[in-house]
Amino acid sequence: MQFPSPVSTQWIASFIDAKIIGNNTSNATGINEIHKVETGDLVFVDHPKYYDTCINSAATFIIINKELEAPEGKTLLVVENPFEAYCKIVNHFRPFEAADKMISNTVVIGKDSIVYPAVFIGHHVTIGKNCTIYPHVTILDHCILGDNVIIQSGSIIGSNAFYYNTKKDREVWYKKMPDCGRVIIEDDVEIGASCTIDRGVSHDTIIGKGSKLDNMIHIGHDTVIGKNCLIAAQVGIAGATTLEEGVTLWGQVGVNKTLTIGANAVVFAQSGVPGNLEGNKVYFGTPAVEAREKQKELVWIKRIPELWDKVMGK
Amino acid sequence: MQFPSPVSTQWIASFIDAKIIGNNTSNATGINEIHKVETGDLVFVDHPKYYDTCINSAATFIIINKELEAPEGKTLLVVENPFEAYCKIVNHFRPFEAADKMISNTVVIGKDSIVYPAVFIGHHVTIGKNCTIYPHVTILDHCILGDNVIIQSGSIIGSNAFYYNTKKDREVWYKKMPDCGRVIIEDDVEIGASCTIDRGVSHDTIIGKGSKLDNMIHIGHDTVIGKNCLIAAQVGIAGATTLEEGVTLWGQVGVNKTLTIGANAVVFAQSGVPGNLEGNKVYFGTPAVEAREKQKELVWIKRIPELWDKVMGK
Amino acid sequence: MQFPSPVSTQWIASFIDAKIIGNNTSNATGINEIHKVETGDLVFVDHPKYYDTCINSAATFIIINKELEAPEGKTLLVVENPFEAYCKIVNHFRPFEAADKMISNTVVIGKDSIVYPAVFIGHHVTIGKNCTIYPHVTILDHCILGDNVIIQSGSIIGSNAFYYNTKKDREVWYKKMPDCGRVIIEDDVEIGASCTIDRGVSHDTIIGKGSKLDNMIHIGHDTVIGKNCLIAAQVGIAGATTLEEGVTLWGQVGVNKTLTIGANAVVFAQSGVPGNLEGNKVYFGTPAVEAREKQKELVWIKRIPELWDKVMGK
Repeated sequence: MQFPSPVSTQWIASFIDAKIIGNNTSNATGINEIHKVETGDLVFVDHPKYYDTCINSAATFIIINKELEAPEGKTLLVVENPFEAYCKIVNHFRPFEAADKMISNTVVIGKDSIVYPAVFIGHHVTIGKNCTIYPHVTILDHCILGDNVIIQSGSIIGSNAFYYNTKKDREVWYKKMPDCGRVIIEDDVEIGASCTIDRGVSHDTIIGKGSKLDNMIHIGHDTVIGKNCLIAAQVGIAGATTLEEGVTLWGQVGVNKTLTIGANAVVFAQSGVPGNLEGNKVYFGTPAVEAREKQKELVWIKRIPELWDKVMGK
Repeated sequence: MQFPSPVSTQWIASFIDAKIIGNNTSNATGINEIHKVETGDLVFVDHPKYYDTCINSAATFIIINKELEAPEGKTLLVVENPFEAYCKIVNHFRPFEAADKMISNTVVIGKDSIVYPAVFIGHHVTIGKNCTIYPHVTILDHCILGDNVIIQSGSIIGSNAFYYNTKKDREVWYKKMPDCGRVIIEDDVEIGASCTIDRGVSHDTIIGKGSKLDNMIHIGHDTVIGKNCLIAAQVGIAGATTLEEGVTLWGQVGVNKTLTIGANAVVFAQSGVPGNLEGNKVYFGTPAVEAREKQKELVWIKRIPELWDKVMGK
Repeated sequence: MQFPSPVSTQWIASFIDAKIIGNNTSNATGINEIHKVETGDLVFVDHPKYYDTCINSAATFIIINKELEAPEGKTLLVVENPFEAYCKIVNHFRPFEAADKMISNTVVIGKDSIVYPAVFIGHHVTIGKNCTIYPHVTILDHCILGDNVIIQSGSIIGSNAFYYNTKKDREVWYKKMPDCGRVIIEDDVEIGASCTIDRGVSHDTIIGKGSKLDNMIHIGHDTVIGKNCLIAAQVGIAGATTLEEGVTLWGQVGVNKTLTIGANAVVFAQSGVPGNLEGNKVYFGTPAVEAREKQKELVWIKRIPELWDKVMGK
């Protein structure tokens, strides 16, 4: 999330009661979790295992629970509980706004767009021209829809990320990260019935122009779907993953987090994608490999009894 | 879709600005996409690969983008863009009707049926006797429910088909087919929570008498489920597939499009069905094979290390 | 289900027109289906295959369609159709209550809890303090939510069990069991968007304190999820299963009914769990085995061609 305007180191340090180490003259331009961090951003880290990664990330400001040396030009903000400090900043810049009606007064809806009855649209949502929003759709705060977008019944745009701060030495192991990202749905996208598109934790979840999603598809936080992708029913894509342009995923495919599927790749039904896939190829299986390789493997498995007989001299 | 009354060749040709080749005296009785086409129907084709299939299908009228010879008694309607012509006809006979309330005035609901609050029911829907429709259900235009039907919360009846006209040489690759089919749910059917039953593209999606669906089941367009089928949670069935009577699908099964599963077949959980399955058998695996065959295969796989040792003389 | 107060043998026998065999002086304290039966309960059995199991279960009262000997202290209630008798009792003690508004007057909602617009809450529901219930959530009758619970949009709490009385010699094979169980969601639980949590058939479905569920998760009737479990998107868990504390299930996992997954077990994405799993281990595959075993198996499969070549002397 970008801040509405740059925020001084002093203001932040005072707001979260932090000790400043390093540069104390620069201004923060936003806040992001580690996967989406940019120059000028605040980030937080509370586990020694990730200290190096965060300090050496693109972030300019690191909220941390240990006094370490700050790299040139960077600022460490030392607090006892960096997670709580992060939450406090996010909640300050993205405060909860109660909803008391089905469509917020702050919603902007373009010409010739049709909104059926029983649609909930939260605050600061923008919907383009010539869209159709079917009954029982939920579009939560700050989401943006382009032109000619269709959202079928029961779909949820902008649900919270499944993203927790984990500490197994306390009674409640998983504490919710407040999320300040959005969902951006570009022009000519169709979202089928009963899909869930989670908002970014701190950045944006994006569905690219012309992509078509069937029913019951889950798209995780901060995931970016390229243009003209085709995604069949019951596919699930975890967080912060990228599909390049023209990717096709058939039904019930599962895709792991923080990976990339290359342009025009095709993944057959029920496959599980654990890591990056090159574009312009066809994949199958759990874990997904090139489909022709998988087909050969299936044939080889059927030949084991024959092989056994040969070895046994039958 | 059947037309309300037969439509003359001349009217159609004039409406879509087509050149007539062949029989110019007959009347069209309906319009269907290629998988569901019947005698008297209009169909369209815009790719040379499918010219023969469409011209030789049951259709009497073929909207096409090439001047070819018409078989005896058939009519070719030559236009530049057959897909657009098809859409124009469908939209004419099945025009969009805006919904301004949760339950349309045109809905017919039978005796002793219970409709909870927060249910959306579109135009021209018929619901039989003694049904229960739970909160947040969506039943879209033209769907038909029999008697003693239960639709649990959040289910969507009559969502649009996932069916597109594809051309990868234009900016938006996938263009939506307007669908004019319906969903027909027969007597004594139960649909669990958060299911999606897509309407037919041009024909009907049917759930047969006495069938029971668990939660989060996706049924594709034009699919026909027989009587007394039992379908467990999170199953997905693609378009234009047929389940004969008494089929059982366990949880998370995926079924491909345009295939048939024979009567009383049982498919174990998480299986993937790529092609036809004979009835009265039990199946397992992706791709699904007879379960006892799959079980043997799993045992053989576990014996590979033993086989390796034998070959290596250990 | 416990009865509001104990019910005499005579009242029950008269209500369902049963012949009493055995003890005719005790009082029934509740009614349960066989998986959840307790001392003092009524249970029913209508198939000779299950007579022994039911008569020797914890149940004190057995509604049965055969005159058999009653064990010491137990009561057989002989009727022609035990299923219908069971339904009659359940429906008497848990009668259908029509809903005429989005939030029943009988709902109790704790301090600082936020209920968005378009939420349906049925009769006799209790919601604790500091909860957030997002738009288009459905919470059906008799469910109980603790404090700090978040239910994201479109989720259904308390849908009916997928549980039928099956007889293939009648026209409609599957007849619905009326369910009288509840869903209990403990403190600090988060339920993602578009989940479905079925109520118990006769007992309770429980989501333990601090557990976090991602989107589109299906939890079957009478299933008990322990504390601090983490369940990723599109997981399905069948009925009457138990997850002990700290279990992690990754995306699209399927879990069979009436089994137990031990504390702190981790099951990788898309796995299928057919039977009990020991705690403190990591699992993968369909059927799920220890992950390192499965990984070895995948390597062995890739070595079949090499093995073939060795045997063939290439």
